[in-house]
Amino acid sequence: MPASPIRRLVPYAEAAKSSGTVVYHLNIGQPDIATAPAFWDGIAGYREKVLSYSHSAGLASYRQAYAQQLNQKGYGLSADDVLISTGGSEALVMAMMACFDPGDEILIPEPFYANYNGFAAMGGVVLRPFTTLIEENFALPAVEDLAGAVGPRTRAIMICNPNNPTGTLYTRQELAGLAALAKAHDLFLIADEVYREFVYDGLEHDSILSLEGMEEHAVVVESTSKMYSACGARIGALITRNRELMGTVLKYAQARLSPPTLDQAGALSALLHTGRDYFDGVRSEYVARRNTMVQALNALPGVQCPLPGGAFYAVARLPIDDSDAFCQWMLEHHRHEGATVMMAPATGFYATPGLGKQEVRLAYVLDQESLVRAMDCLATGLEAYNARG
Amino acid sequence: MPASPIRRLVPYAEAAKSSGTVVYHLNIGQPDIATAPAFWDGIAGYREKVLSYSHSAGLASYRQAYAQQLNQKGYGLSADDVLISTGGSEALVMAMMACFDPGDEILIPEPFYANYNGFAAMGGVVLRPFTTLIEENFALPAVEDLAGAVGPRTRAIMICNPNNPTGTLYTRQELAGLAALAKAHDLFLIADEVYREFVYDGLEHDSILSLEGMEEHAVVVESTSKMYSACGARIGALITRNRELMGTVLKYAQARLSPPTLDQAGALSALLHTGRDYFDGVRSEYVARRNTMVQALNALPGVQCPLPGGAFYAVARLPIDDSDAFCQWMLEHHRHEGATVMMAPATGFYATPGLGKQEVRLAYVLDQESLVRAMDCLATGLEAYNARG
Repeated sequence: MPASPIRRLVPYAEAAKSSGTVVYHLNIGQPDIATAPAFWDGIAGYREKVLSYSHSAGLASYRQAYAQQLNQKGYGLSADDVLISTGGSEALVMAMMACFDPGDEILIPEPFYANYNGFAAMGGVVLRPFTTLIEENFALPAVEDLAGAVGPRTRAIMICNPNNPTGTLYTRQELAGLAALAKAHDLFLIADEVYREFVYDGLEHDSILSLEGMEEHAVVVESTSKMYSACGARIGALITRNRELMGTVLKYAQARLSPPTLDQAGALSALLHTGRDYFDGVRSEYVARRNTMVQALNALPGVQCPLPGGAFYAVARLPIDDSDAFCQWMLEHHRHEGATVMMAPATGFYATPGLGKQEVRLAYVLDQESLVRAMDCLATGLEAYNARG
Repeated sequence: MPASPIRRLVPYAEAAKSSGTVVYHLNIGQPDIATAPAFWDGIAGYREKVLSYSHSAGLASYRQAYAQQLNQKGYGLSADDVLISTGGSEALVMAMMACFDPGDEILIPEPFYANYNGFAAMGGVVLRPFTTLIEENFALPAVEDLAGAVGPRTRAIMICNPNNPTGTLYTRQELAGLAALAKAHDLFLIADEVYREFVYDGLEHDSILSLEGMEEHAVVVESTSKMYSACGARIGALITRNRELMGTVLKYAQARLSPPTLDQAGALSALLHTGRDYFDGVRSEYVARRNTMVQALNALPGVQCPLPGGAFYAVARLPIDDSDAFCQWMLEHHRHEGATVMMAPATGFYATPGLGKQEVRLAYVLDQESLVRAMDCLATGLEAYNARG
């Protein structure tokens, strides 16, 4: 089981804090956005005397409402196509265990969310990366190029859209290409769509649920925790119209009995009573933060950061040769106005050894004032690091 | 992945209910006891605006309080020896994944909790059962007999104490025997102690944490959800003083980010502010229910049911030859005063094929009046079943 690479730096951050240094956490996806008020209303309105298990697939009322809301986009889902999980993470683990036999392979664009390594290890599945490039804003390769990567053990293609760590939003054309490949080779197409509400600049998120003829292939992972800024609620969902697959997933769900019941009550209320204005407000806030951070990054000498279309992450190339060493050095040695910055070295997001050594992932989950200070701190840090001699 | 055997009967129970029949659910461990009031106080008192992730190992305040409470029994634990899990189920899965390599074997008394099969399958671990007998109230065999079962791939002994499904409470002597075996063969001793507060007749529960020289061997699973009748809270714990093992467990915990935060706030409040009188009241209630049910069972011709010392389950031998068929027949065909009874066939709790065909597991989680009606229904059912000709 691989250790989470972002966590390696935690002791250095803790040491910095205990010496009185402010640490700007751009390393994790824990937003400071207030949880949707309707979530709290759902918790406060819970009136049962016994906090009992829910159905292993989730509260029936919640699954029903969940399917209905998705069906506003014309997907034609039933409640049975939706399984409520304990966070998006559990849905990913269940997908890894239910879709594959040990030794099966998944094609996946790198850089990718580092915890996928752990989930794959749990299922005994092998992740086969194909590299996307910062110069191309991490766009997917042409389908023709990808087809050659399909091998005898390939059973699925997996994407995260919008992407963590890059923030890249895939186009409908890119998705259609993946769907064609999945159908041609009878592969699952697994899409982690936990950031689907975090899409900017008037762009639209296309779910793989909207693709034709993908009923047996498409597996979608969502996260209520992410959508309503309730990360600690640990409520997500696995969505598929493949009944055989859902039957297998349900067995895993039954073994762990149920997702948290009270949190589902909050999530149901959030789903039913959170208006578009909440998301509009959240999106405006993230766009402002993104613009502040990315503009500041691209103004630094030797720094390159594509503008992300979604999520709340960006990958930047820095004028350094070892991002792990640089991120650690920042925490250990660089102070600017009593503060330092914690970033995630991008090496942990690549499966191919040696890649990502000049890149870091930055999560723009802090308010703008903090982001400005963090960028000033990074600017002086880069200067000092490269002047060490 | 094996399906939960208890769940196979669910469609028959649903059909009975939709035709207007009352179904007494003696098949599941979902108590009707009110959740400890202090749990709800902890939820109502939660004041954060952002429901954020907790530490992957759980809220620091909760782990600290958890260790302190256990230390009242002299265990000398630190907060780092306690990892908060998403229900006892997740702690069991983590133990299966962290303690073993695929193909490793666990010695386990049968009958055992059926979901262990699923957890073992996830970890690629093989459960090697040794049979305990209803005639001996499911006591453990002598250590000398057990030693012969230790093979080259054996890496652990696993028990549930008090036991699900039998309700058997193991003696200190039985535990000391297992500890000696674990030390002699360098095995883990994994104890599922989620029912530790449910112990009756003035008996005391002995945790394997109290056994000498077991620091590197003992792994305990607990469940806040069970203890405070908050099954839907999905809060449990894995406790071990083996630092290397805890390091591996923490990697799995980090991959899934965190257990539910709000439920931990409830659990912390329950832990801090639930007095002994709450547990005394719960125990009295269960003792009365147990006595009612077990006396009624043993009064039936051909029925044998040992008096359980703990948990809220009993295994009874019935005058039938196929418990799966009988339990299904009860749901499909037997009605007494407009009601029927759902039980768990014991076959699902044995790994050895053919065992448990005369036995069922009954959970005494209903109020006494319902239990009396359920026993009347079972009595007439047995009569009618055996008179079918």
